[in-house]
Amino acid sequence: MGSAAASPPPPGSPLSQDELKRVAAHRAVEFVEPGMTLGLGTGSTAAHALDRLGDLLRAGALPGVAGVPTSLKTELHAARAGIPLLPLDAASGARIRLSIDGADEVDPDLNLVKGRGGSLLREKMIEGAGERFVVIVDESKLVPRLGCTGAVPVEVIPFGAPHTLGLIRKVFEGLPGFHARLRTVKTEADDVPFVTDNGNYIVEMFFEDGIRGDLRDISDRLLRITGVIEHGMFLGMATTVIVANKDGTVSVLHKKK
Amino acid sequence: MGSAAASPPPPGSPLSQDELKRVAAHRAVEFVEPGMTLGLGTGSTAAHALDRLGDLLRAGALPGVAGVPTSLKTELHAARAGIPLLPLDAASGARIRLSIDGADEVDPDLNLVKGRGGSLLREKMIEGAGERFVVIVDESKLVPRLGCTGAVPVEVIPFGAPHTLGLIRKVFEGLPGFHARLRTVKTEADDVPFVTDNGNYIVEMFFEDGIRGDLRDISDRLLRITGVIEHGMFLGMATTVIVANKDGTVSVLHKKK
Repeated sequence: MGSAAASPPPPGSPLSQDELKRVAAHRAVEFVEPGMTLGLGTGSTAAHALDRLGDLLRAGALPGVAGVPTSLKTELHAARAGIPLLPLDAASGARIRLSIDGADEVDPDLNLVKGRGGSLLREKMIEGAGERFVVIVDESKLVPRLGCTGAVPVEVIPFGAPHTLGLIRKVFEGLPGFHARLRTVKTEADDVPFVTDNGNYIVEMFFEDGIRGDLRDISDRLLRITGVIEHGMFLGMATTVIVANKDGTVSVLHKKK
Repeated sequence: MGSAAASPPPPGSPLSQDELKRVAAHRAVEFVEPGMTLGLGTGSTAAHALDRLGDLLRAGALPGVAGVPTSLKTELHAARAGIPLLPLDAASGARIRLSIDGADEVDPDLNLVKGRGGSLLREKMIEGAGERFVVIVDESKLVPRLGCTGAVPVEVIPFGAPHTLGLIRKVFEGLPGFHARLRTVKTEADDVPFVTDNGNYIVEMFFEDGIRGDLRDISDRLLRITGVIEHGMFLGMATTVIVANKDGTVSVLHKKK
């Protein structure tokens, strides 16, 4: 576990889960300095950070700040909040100083699972481009091992997806309780594959008791499968994790050097 | 180099390059047995194999043979030639006994560069699924190192492609003569990115004197880049390479066990 520093509970606890997310998000925005280019995350927790950034920008507290959005949804939200936006290109990528985003799971080494909402590729590109990546979660997201609380998503090429699914299963062959399936959405007529914002499919991997073993080796084995584009394990990327605890305190975990 | 067995020159040599391709393709089709599911390659050399397969099927010599096409072009060509077709799924993938395709380069360890025509992902999926992969080339494709005679393609996600291009350049940072660029096509108005049959872009990597170093390590470093889907280095995949030599002889190279 990284080093922890707990804050005193804010007045009026216990807070709702959404209030906890807001507390963590505001704490994350304290890392933002004037002139920074930011990676802007997606999801209900990251949305609180966008609102906070917008408030501070309007108050004139963060001149020169601009953001690179990780989704269309975030782009629209940030524009409404008055945050100047940049596309991801070589220039903006090199300038991203800090990204702020939520996560589905955080393990003791600050490895993450992200993308259960169906979006992981743009987040991984943008959050991997920056110098610092501050993750904001509530306490329920802390896990002993990745894959303990739900799906680990893998983005795959639509062509040959059933074949690719078979190759993903082979990586975990013989692992008790492991299963994987193509993510689908219900329509009136039928279940159809879920399509990502890049036009790809998602394979969901489920582990009975989380992923044991060398995560980087497992990552390489997945990435070597020809139909696999990316997976939702964010390894060694988070530099700081801000945790809003149920009792209203906030813990700040830092990546071990 | 694999073990070599040269055939006597056919009557009427020297043959044109297209005739050499045909000679190699016919030799490759000799590996096909009744009942086999085949991976069907794409390109001018593979087209000769499709024609030959069609002739043999019509003559009743290869009952039960079916093919999994690596491109829409091959699908149309194979259908015209009368070859029964299967889509790539878990069942057909597991059944592919043999694939036949051309290559842009073949190194002494039978590693390949493929995809200079812009198509590599479906080939890699299908040819990687089978038990044997027979490559058919003319002598000009034999190289001491991959990347000696032209581009090594990398298929990338359109989102953030300029950023991904920057990360690909970093893998080869400081390598004299290396350069990389986004593949484009000219239109009346402007140069626009070339789009693959999966809706992605292609980055072309150029090496002054071919790729030196551990190819598998270089492969992993490319695949770890979030925007990279696949590259055109086919490492350890070819089991047999049939070479049509300028003098009209055919050499058959086998992968070292």
